[in-house]
Amino acid sequence: MTSFLNRLIDMALAEDIGTGDITTDYLIPGDRQGCGAIVAKEALVLCGLDIAKTVFQRLDPDVRLHADGKDGAEIACGETVLTLEGNLRALLTAERPALNFLQHLSGIATHVRIYVNALSHHSRVRLVDTRKTTPGWRVLEKYAVRTGGAHNHRMGLFDGVLIKDNHIAACGGIRQAVSAARKQISHLIKIEVEVSDLGGVNEALESGVDVIMLDNMDVAHIREAVSAIQHRAVVEVSGGVTLEHLADLAETGVDLISIGALTHSARAVDLSMRIQ
Amino acid sequence: MTSFLNRLIDMALAEDIGTGDITTDYLIPGDRQGCGAIVAKEALVLCGLDIAKTVFQRLDPDVRLHADGKDGAEIACGETVLTLEGNLRALLTAERPALNFLQHLSGIATHVRIYVNALSHHSRVRLVDTRKTTPGWRVLEKYAVRTGGAHNHRMGLFDGVLIKDNHIAACGGIRQAVSAARKQISHLIKIEVEVSDLGGVNEALESGVDVIMLDNMDVAHIREAVSAIQHRAVVEVSGGVTLEHLADLAETGVDLISIGALTHSARAVDLSMRIQ
Amino acid sequence: MTSFLNRLIDMALAEDIGTGDITTDYLIPGDRQGCGAIVAKEALVLCGLDIAKTVFQRLDPDVRLHADGKDGAEIACGETVLTLEGNLRALLTAERPALNFLQHLSGIATHVRIYVNALSHHSRVRLVDTRKTTPGWRVLEKYAVRTGGAHNHRMGLFDGVLIKDNHIAACGGIRQAVSAARKQISHLIKIEVEVSDLGGVNEALESGVDVIMLDNMDVAHIREAVSAIQHRAVVEVSGGVTLEHLADLAETGVDLISIGALTHSARAVDLSMRIQ
Amino acid sequence: MTSFLNRLIDMALAEDIGTGDITTDYLIPGDRQGCGAIVAKEALVLCGLDIAKTVFQRLDPDVRLHADGKDGAEIACGETVLTLEGNLRALLTAERPALNFLQHLSGIATHVRIYVNALSHHSRVRLVDTRKTTPGWRVLEKYAVRTGGAHNHRMGLFDGVLIKDNHIAACGGIRQAVSAARKQISHLIKIEVEVSDLGGVNEALESGVDVIMLDNMDVAHIREAVSAIQHRAVVEVSGGVTLEHLADLAETGVDLISIGALTHSARAVDLSMRIQ
Amino acid sequence: MTSFLNRLIDMALAEDIGTGDITTDYLIPGDRQGCGAIVAKEALVLCGLDIAKTVFQRLDPDVRLHADGKDGAEIACGETVLTLEGNLRALLTAERPALNFLQHLSGIATHVRIYVNALSHHSRVRLVDTRKTTPGWRVLEKYAVRTGGAHNHRMGLFDGVLIKDNHIAACGGIRQAVSAARKQISHLIKIEVEVSDLGGVNEALESGVDVIMLDNMDVAHIREAVSAIQHRAVVEVSGGVTLEHLADLAETGVDLISIGALTHSARAVDLSMRIQ
Amino acid sequence: MTSFLNRLIDMALAEDIGTGDITTDYLIPGDRQGCGAIVAKEALVLCGLDIAKTVFQRLDPDVRLHADGKDGAEIACGETVLTLEGNLRALLTAERPALNFLQHLSGIATHVRIYVNALSHHSRVRLVDTRKTTPGWRVLEKYAVRTGGAHNHRMGLFDGVLIKDNHIAACGGIRQAVSAARKQISHLIKIEVEVSDLGGVNEALESGVDVIMLDNMDVAHIREAVSAIQHRAVVEVSGGVTLEHLADLAETGVDLISIGALTHSARAVDLSMRIQ
Repeated sequence: MTSFLNRLIDMALAEDIGTGDITTDYLIPGDRQGCGAIVAKEALVLCGLDIAKTVFQRLDPDVRLHADGKDGAEIACGETVLTLEGNLRALLTAERPALNFLQHLSGIATHVRIYVNALSHHSRVRLVDTRKTTPGWRVLEKYAVRTGGAHNHRMGLFDGVLIKDNHIAACGGIRQAVSAARKQISHLIKIEVEVSDLGGVNEALESGVDVIMLDNMDVAHIREAVSAIQHRAVVEVSGGVTLEHLADLAETGVDLISIGALTHSARAVDLSMRIQ
Repeated sequence: MTSFLNRLIDMALAEDIGTGDITTDYLIPGDRQGCGAIVAKEALVLCGLDIAKTVFQRLDPDVRLHADGKDGAEIACGETVLTLEGNLRALLTAERPALNFLQHLSGIATHVRIYVNALSHHSRVRLVDTRKTTPGWRVLEKYAVRTGGAHNHRMGLFDGVLIKDNHIAACGGIRQAVSAARKQISHLIKIEVEVSDLGGVNEALESGVDVIMLDNMDVAHIREAVSAIQHRAVVEVSGGVTLEHLADLAETGVDLISIGALTHSARAVDLSMRIQ
Repeated sequence: MTSFLNRLIDMALAEDIGTGDITTDYLIPGDRQGCGAIVAKEALVLCGLDIAKTVFQRLDPDVRLHADGKDGAEIACGETVLTLEGNLRALLTAERPALNFLQHLSGIATHVRIYVNALSHHSRVRLVDTRKTTPGWRVLEKYAVRTGGAHNHRMGLFDGVLIKDNHIAACGGIRQAVSAARKQISHLIKIEVEVSDLGGVNEALESGVDVIMLDNMDVAHIREAVSAIQHRAVVEVSGGVTLEHLADLAETGVDLISIGALTHSARAVDLSMRIQ
Repeated sequence: MTSFLNRLIDMALAEDIGTGDITTDYLIPGDRQGCGAIVAKEALVLCGLDIAKTVFQRLDPDVRLHADGKDGAEIACGETVLTLEGNLRALLTAERPALNFLQHLSGIATHVRIYVNALSHHSRVRLVDTRKTTPGWRVLEKYAVRTGGAHNHRMGLFDGVLIKDNHIAACGGIRQAVSAARKQISHLIKIEVEVSDLGGVNEALESGVDVIMLDNMDVAHIREAVSAIQHRAVVEVSGGVTLEHLADLAETGVDLISIGALTHSARAVDLSMRIQ
Repeated sequence: MTSFLNRLIDMALAEDIGTGDITTDYLIPGDRQGCGAIVAKEALVLCGLDIAKTVFQRLDPDVRLHADGKDGAEIACGETVLTLEGNLRALLTAERPALNFLQHLSGIATHVRIYVNALSHHSRVRLVDTRKTTPGWRVLEKYAVRTGGAHNHRMGLFDGVLIKDNHIAACGGIRQAVSAARKQISHLIKIEVEVSDLGGVNEALESGVDVIMLDNMDVAHIREAVSAIQHRAVVEVSGGVTLEHLADLAETGVDLISIGALTHSARAVDLSMRIQ
Repeated sequence: MTSFLNRLIDMALAEDIGTGDITTDYLIPGDRQGCGAIVAKEALVLCGLDIAKTVFQRLDPDVRLHADGKDGAEIACGETVLTLEGNLRALLTAERPALNFLQHLSGIATHVRIYVNALSHHSRVRLVDTRKTTPGWRVLEKYAVRTGGAHNHRMGLFDGVLIKDNHIAACGGIRQAVSAARKQISHLIKIEVEVSDLGGVNEALESGVDVIMLDNMDVAHIREAVSAIQHRAVVEVSGGVTLEHLADLAETGVDLISIGALTHSARAVDLSMRIQ
């Protein structure tokens, strides 16, 4: 996680500071100390505390930071999330980049928590994310999903086989595709196939696939598919899932519900920094 | 823009492909050609076409790409945004990263366009963004804001002076802060001061500031401030602006309305790629 | 693979060329063209052809390259592997880095092929590599293993769970460790546990593990373990495997044999370049 | 050395950890401390101690490390090479990359020491390496050669002139090549010419070369060449040198014996880490 | 500033140390401590102290550094600028890169101070630099200009609009160009237009430009232009300004005098390091 | 050279363009073509032509470039150095960075040529540069020195041994230092010792050093030293050499004269670009 995070922090500081913070550098003496606090302006699930700390430490390696809560904690409106003491220029210059990390990641964690709570009576079902993440942010956003209480689908193209219709067409059928993948992949990787009807479900089962993704199917068909599969494969539903019919989906007996909006459409939460 | 963009594309491909796309590489022969189309699944304002193209070209420098529209165009649901022809492995592996760029940037442009349209009868007022952008994405998201039809506030800490309360406190007053900045900044940079009441407005005017930001003031006070300023400075309002009272704000006579949500809280729009 | 490869090629050229090839630059006119051939000086399994080509293209983007064979082909002593035509300075300067890539990767592929051939009558058993690779070379060396005809174990710490004794001790037992991992990992990842005796085998089976690694056990105990497991988990043997007793191991009924020496102790094969 | 080393450590950690060590991160609490020891599983010449330390420090900057020996020491089988105390996750995740550096460099140092010992009665003769090193590892492998007790030939194309047959052909003869190089190179660099027969030796001597490399000549011809040269130039022999006839070569009176296999074909030595 | 500086220090050390400081590494024991002093060999205005310190800290993070003066101080010939105590190898290897930074930046500051002093009776006039800086050194050289007592023009193409004849021609006139820029640029950025005669001055004034640059005009015409402008725009003179007629230019009533030679043609000042 | 050059061009474009050329991007249509010419505004020795071309190609890969002259050519005032045809935005944005490279490198080459001409009747003596170069520019500035007609001293700390007083003191004498270096350095590297009096000369000769540097000695002592050395070592003079007494120094019989000012104090030459 560290190397992806460090590159993103490098970029965040470079794009914002550029050739210099001309307001702060010209108005604040270089040796002035100060202290501040980051405060939640709305109720939120905290995520990104260590990242925000790292941003401040980049500009003042000796900054003193204190937080009562931890990533995953539910923070009330008005609550202080982080207190800081250090070089005043560093605090002022790093404020916005640090907040930008916190508001984006806490936004996702807060959003995910709502979905997780909606499934609280269906503990057997896993809520999972997708690869629909903000470019550059994959590892961080998937961390925010876990912080919110949901699970991760594969991290990328390298740690899971997911055979989609295009792959199937190119191989001449599900059976051929699954068999070709099985011959080559590591023995620690499972194979998932995306299907859109019961014919696909049956072909997938016969090919000995590990996971079946039911893509954009309605609840009735999902129910049929689940009873056809009879636990011979893990069942994921995907496509157009909304908060409203999450419980209905869970009751069909599927194992996983995946939602792209967890990462790509969460709004930022509101946090601000006050200097004393 | 190129260097920021290239680093983000590098990261997007690295985080997704990692040690290899094990589905595509194991199932699709390396020399197979294919063609595909990216299609809008909802009405949207297109943004990021050249970026999506660049993502595909990274994996297949010889890919042939064609688009009828341009960034900024309003695309109907079902419309084809981009057609592609090239190495099939490259198309399949680059699909998700390319779509992730398109859905995020078009999401912002689409969101911005709604606000811009709401101000269509107030052409004198500029809608502007803020520095509340996704870390690593500043230049791209500000481009999406322009694509949507709004304007950019400063790009970062380096191309405009914005004196906030913390700066004022540290300098001992608005007058001292403005005077210190004026002495040092380039003659091509203007100075903006953030104030929260009429006292601040007056002090800012007396210090000869170029732009006054009215922070989190209600409509009545904004109106008062505008009439006190009498065009001696550009007037920006900021803080908690919503679509609903945008027109009311515009009618107060302010010059600029800035909204952080333009960049930090736009949801992604839905696009998908079909392989033929 | 591309990003890891590009960084390694960058380093290879930087460390060798440094501030300039003072022999070639001072003796050969900058516009002189030449042609050459890379020839095998011993029988070998070819691996790294595209990488060698890329090294030459870095110094002369217009170099013309031709190869009859492909990675994986068995090349006889004296056979030409690659012919080149282009800028003479580029050919001379890139010669050694290009050969260094070829001799290392073909060395591994050649070494692996010997082991693979020794298992040719045991097609059910997979020969796999380990994470004992040359730092910086993981993706390339694992590619050479596949080129030689064997399979890859996990690529790194991110695409498979392998619970070793230290993990077990820290969790308080195999059952606890497997259960904790199962709750958190992606549904596309399997769990392997390393055990060193039959007690471990039984505990692993009861915990519902997917793969059991028998670490440094003798043939008699391996046989016992295999019959205890009865195909309820995939069985890997690891530790001190030599070419001599590979067939004996295969006959115990295990599924996988892993050998670190495939990547960390293959000698380079001999190739040289002739300029005409 | 630092910049090459840091890049290689970056790559080693990136390629192995990728998006995260899912075994360790999911099973070991983030604040658990632990201690461990790296132990030699066979007799070896130690090389890479500081590099291994740096790998652990990357993941835990506060790790406490202790080693009794130094690079170059002969370590017995079973001897402890390094003890560690620090964050348990860091120890477990860094274990394999750290060992991979140690096993590769100590492998070379151990291999070199055998050749050096074989020349112990010929102290006038220098054993030297070549540019046949693992790409990305030039500086480290040349350090391992010195640690083993041998000397370095030039580090790269930039710190010595070595005129080979291709250069000679392109310049129209040894004399022209040497004279052209002499006119341009720094006064601190010497010139070596590769020859394959006595004619070449004589032409090289007449051109006033500093060093003559006898390429792939048999012992009888080497002897003839040495007596023709009569210390007017340093004499290096190169090509197909094996441990067996090293002493014979040394007795011919040559000054330097270069062996590519020192770096490209040493097998890794066996080390392992135990956690207490 | 930090990210540009760090890249330059990386390059400075890489280009000088390369594969190793063979004099220091082979002659000085690795644990030897030493102390030294950097001394001015001529009168100078000091600039780059923190940068020089950072260079030494790269090679010895524990080096102890002490300086009496600060950047901007006038240092007499023979005066000590910096004392150092730390690892002797680090001091010797970093000496030349550290001095190279100091001699270049102090050279500029010293050069600038002479021009600033020549304008000491014209405090209303600003002496400014240009974009004619050494590639890679923009931020550092502009810092040296401020250290010398002058002001910065824009930092780059991103923080100020400067419309030159080519832009004017492409837009069809000054008015069109200024109007197009005004519509798009941030409200914190001013617009400057380059003109070469009184016609241009008038067109610029009518277009409401903020700053007018009089390019390569003689003193008589400058005087005419200033009286035509009557403080309706800031006035900059540029082109071929020499120390000799600086006071004459100042007396014309212009606001800014820009001189490329401040950064591109200052000679290095002489500093040396002594080890005790 | 390529990797150092590419990093410098990256930095030059990043520091100047930053988040965008707001003048050009807002005024010039993106598809407008244009042509231009770079013209010498004073007599100069051209250096950096390929580098300037590369800068333009970065922004427009299809730009057409033509130059009559070559690096090293003497160009008259008013002569065209390079003509360009391509994307107008690219030409305007790249103009200043490209000129900054040309003016700096041609400045050095022009400066060097004057010194070289002053030695034209002393062809036996080599004029050489030092390591006193602009950080980041070592390889380029040393190239400009060769372009001007002089020679390079060592490129850095890695390709020549230069033993200075600090090294001598630490080793206990010249003899010990030379002997320690000789035992360890590559057989292709020579050893130079810096001395400041005849005692040093004699000790250096007795230690069998290859090159003796006479540091800051007057002409009379240099003459004495030369006659004491009697061609048993190469002789370099260094320190405070000016154009005026270059011929006097040459007549003392020394082999090399080194001058730091060749690289660190050459003023930029004047070039400009015209768009048609």
